[in-house]
Amino acid sequence: MAVAALARPAIAQQHSGGGNQPASATAPGAAPKGSAPPPVTRIIARYAASAPADQVPEAVRKEATRTLLNWVGCAVGGSRQDAPGRAVAALKPFSGPEQACLFGRTERLDAPNAALVNGISSHVLDFDDTHLKTIIHPAGPVASALTAFAQFRPVSGQDFMNALTLGCEIECRIGNSVFPEHYAMGWHITGTTGVFGAAAAIGRVLGLDEQRMTWAMGLAATQPVGLKVQFGTDTKSFHPGKAAQNGMIAALLAQQGYTASDVAIEGFDGWGQALSTRHNWDEVTTGLGERYELALNTYKPFACGIVAHPSIDAAIQLRNANSPRPGDIRSIALKVHPLVLNLMGKTEPRTGLEGKFSIFHAVAVALVTGRAGEQAFTDAAVKDPTVVTLRKKVEATVDPAIKPDQADMVVTLNDGRTMHVFVEHAVGSQLHPMSDQQLVEKFMGQTEGILPTDRSRQLLDLCWKAWSLQDAGEIGRMGASA
Amino acid sequence: MAVAALARPAIAQQHSGGGNQPASATAPGAAPKGSAPPPVTRIIARYAASAPADQVPEAVRKEATRTLLNWVGCAVGGSRQDAPGRAVAALKPFSGPEQACLFGRTERLDAPNAALVNGISSHVLDFDDTHLKTIIHPAGPVASALTAFAQFRPVSGQDFMNALTLGCEIECRIGNSVFPEHYAMGWHITGTTGVFGAAAAIGRVLGLDEQRMTWAMGLAATQPVGLKVQFGTDTKSFHPGKAAQNGMIAALLAQQGYTASDVAIEGFDGWGQALSTRHNWDEVTTGLGERYELALNTYKPFACGIVAHPSIDAAIQLRNANSPRPGDIRSIALKVHPLVLNLMGKTEPRTGLEGKFSIFHAVAVALVTGRAGEQAFTDAAVKDPTVVTLRKKVEATVDPAIKPDQADMVVTLNDGRTMHVFVEHAVGSQLHPMSDQQLVEKFMGQTEGILPTDRSRQLLDLCWKAWSLQDAGEIGRMGASA
Repeated sequence: MAVAALARPAIAQQHSGGGNQPASATAPGAAPKGSAPPPVTRIIARYAASAPADQVPEAVRKEATRTLLNWVGCAVGGSRQDAPGRAVAALKPFSGPEQACLFGRTERLDAPNAALVNGISSHVLDFDDTHLKTIIHPAGPVASALTAFAQFRPVSGQDFMNALTLGCEIECRIGNSVFPEHYAMGWHITGTTGVFGAAAAIGRVLGLDEQRMTWAMGLAATQPVGLKVQFGTDTKSFHPGKAAQNGMIAALLAQQGYTASDVAIEGFDGWGQALSTRHNWDEVTTGLGERYELALNTYKPFACGIVAHPSIDAAIQLRNANSPRPGDIRSIALKVHPLVLNLMGKTEPRTGLEGKFSIFHAVAVALVTGRAGEQAFTDAAVKDPTVVTLRKKVEATVDPAIKPDQADMVVTLNDGRTMHVFVEHAVGSQLHPMSDQQLVEKFMGQTEGILPTDRSRQLLDLCWKAWSLQDAGEIGRMGASA
Repeated sequence: MAVAALARPAIAQQHSGGGNQPASATAPGAAPKGSAPPPVTRIIARYAASAPADQVPEAVRKEATRTLLNWVGCAVGGSRQDAPGRAVAALKPFSGPEQACLFGRTERLDAPNAALVNGISSHVLDFDDTHLKTIIHPAGPVASALTAFAQFRPVSGQDFMNALTLGCEIECRIGNSVFPEHYAMGWHITGTTGVFGAAAAIGRVLGLDEQRMTWAMGLAATQPVGLKVQFGTDTKSFHPGKAAQNGMIAALLAQQGYTASDVAIEGFDGWGQALSTRHNWDEVTTGLGERYELALNTYKPFACGIVAHPSIDAAIQLRNANSPRPGDIRSIALKVHPLVLNLMGKTEPRTGLEGKFSIFHAVAVALVTGRAGEQAFTDAAVKDPTVVTLRKKVEATVDPAIKPDQADMVVTLNDGRTMHVFVEHAVGSQLHPMSDQQLVEKFMGQTEGILPTDRSRQLLDLCWKAWSLQDAGEIGRMGASA
């Protein structure tokens, strides 16, 4: 709050000076007030235009592959929800040539509109990847744009994955420079920074030079998407989709010489000034191409709020180790972090959506089925008699000693035997990332019932070998419903 | 600045409360801190969905007609500039069916993309209408969306003009509620408020009910366009075009039931909180359908910065009254407001664009030709020997007694005779609006060389009788190059 109180008047003062002077930052760690910021827009444009694909470290290449794989599963998994269906109905009459498929659907649209719809599908279940430092969902805007565009204009796997990597890198770094103040103002950071990532990625596969890439960044800056007031409505998932589309259009305009400010991010009356009360531009520019934010990407193992994940993890571990029959269970004693009951305290969920806000349902369904994917949060799952009986036996108590990524569970059977699991770091957390095998299981769970199993496996295979594909457009084509 | 320092911490405080509570406003004239704002989003949605066309007062109907006519001239006049050309080149490969013509051009695009390009054309010369209280250019986003959409789906002139009226009204009122703080943050207010105007107008011709119109407003809120850092680049004119397109898409999505927040403008983490440090919601909601901001719309008579307009007005008046031959003029003594030499002090312009920043050129070309439309600011006009000779004879001095809409000019001939004009309120200013005849001359000047004269006259005629047209789509079709 001290930062906010300081920073806004500083911007007001700059206005009295007039002219196209850069905005100063006043927060700790940022440049001293009044000093010129680095040429952020041009620095990231140069990086986006020239970062060599063959210098991405192996670990980052691997994380980029996992990011793609997780995102493709999400895009298929959410494709039959209401939101993408409504978007297709609205956009189809205006769509251009059938340049790109939609994940999990039969329609084809022009590339920018396909990017929009796929972005919606990939985020609608809140099951996509998370850059934990900023809560950005990095893949949404970038992969939505790239998978659609690669069907219109062939791109090698190497170029595609390099563009995905640098696009995610740019959005996460811009996010780091303004988080949390930007987020606290009301912005949904995935949409506001995602447009830069999508523009950089598409600009890169278009081969934009540094000046045109700078214009693409400028055109991206002028089209931020997303307010947090939309959470709980279809418009939340619109944000990564529209960011993808806006970014693609930005790159296409820049390719034709459509000019924009060269200092659109850091300049006076620019993105940073308008959209945040603090900017630490070093977060954007330092170590570009050396350290990778994308390497910190995480994936949700379970299709509900992240605070429930340690408890679900405990339930699945306990089931895998002991195979208790639901009918044999007398009680389930759960110790959780205080936020859990705050956010997930619904004791009698009546719908699948309500189930996502019930730690009792989440634990019960995980004990019964050993899974907590999208199928665990359907209306049917919430009404399943075995699950209902078991969820009434869950006693959750808050324990301040339990950390956010921890949970403690003791199951007592009717015969008096007890089983205990303590989760130190939940699966999917920074210190216990999902394994490749867990990502595969999540992927197959998401595509189940939408794509035929053999097609899902082919799609999975394309994702694993994405860096070496001849034609990355195959991913989007294979992901469509036949 | 006091407002800014107060308002931002107020928003930060609200965050600690959590939940979807409305943002409070702290500025004078706004509701007291902590009190709930009115349901702004729903109020304007109700107005947009239901304001009866036959209750628009005659004077407002007339001003709406003049707004349309002026805007159509601008859209034709700017259509051959680089910016719309580059946009067409970028967008054409992705465009849908040829649903709508482009003003002054031969290509056709799908309706949303046509709206984007026409919005660019209409603003690229900075010659369009101005709502002086907010510096919003009201017609750009709304008319760009409507003229394109009416070619796709037939709309009567009455419905079209009512939608234009309420769209402009909504964007200007939202602008009033946040100006100047919103503008000072860096936002280009035409794009950020224009998206609401376009969404309301298209939502209205689609016949959206109140709930769907509310969603359309919510979808508009989440897609603001435009930063002032872009001024001086192609991206400035992108703003009204993209606002038109975003607004149209918002309405089309809402029509299909795509949900958004019902409190997207005034709510916690909503548009007002994120995009301004002050919100006086009464400016939006009071007297809706009774007093009209559109009635205050103004039109630029001359194709350059508004500070030069009094001097140009003086030159044209002097020429019309006395018809001095340029060769007979010995000197031109001009007294101007201080801002004039600050903004227009270029003594030796070399290009048409530089001519727009030269009071010396502007006065000379007006004395020679009696006009100061787009043709007065071409490279050829700036290099014309008669104009060059005359501009060297202009002596401009700053006089603090001269108000912004005033100028004092004395022309002395070689034979010693003098001619004097004092302009009390320049033509086009609030107190001396352009006459219908002047609007017609501006229109014909803008379309000259782009449309055949008889086609220009037919287009003009369609604009004058817009409220009674059977099919308002005729306007966009007639405005295209054959």
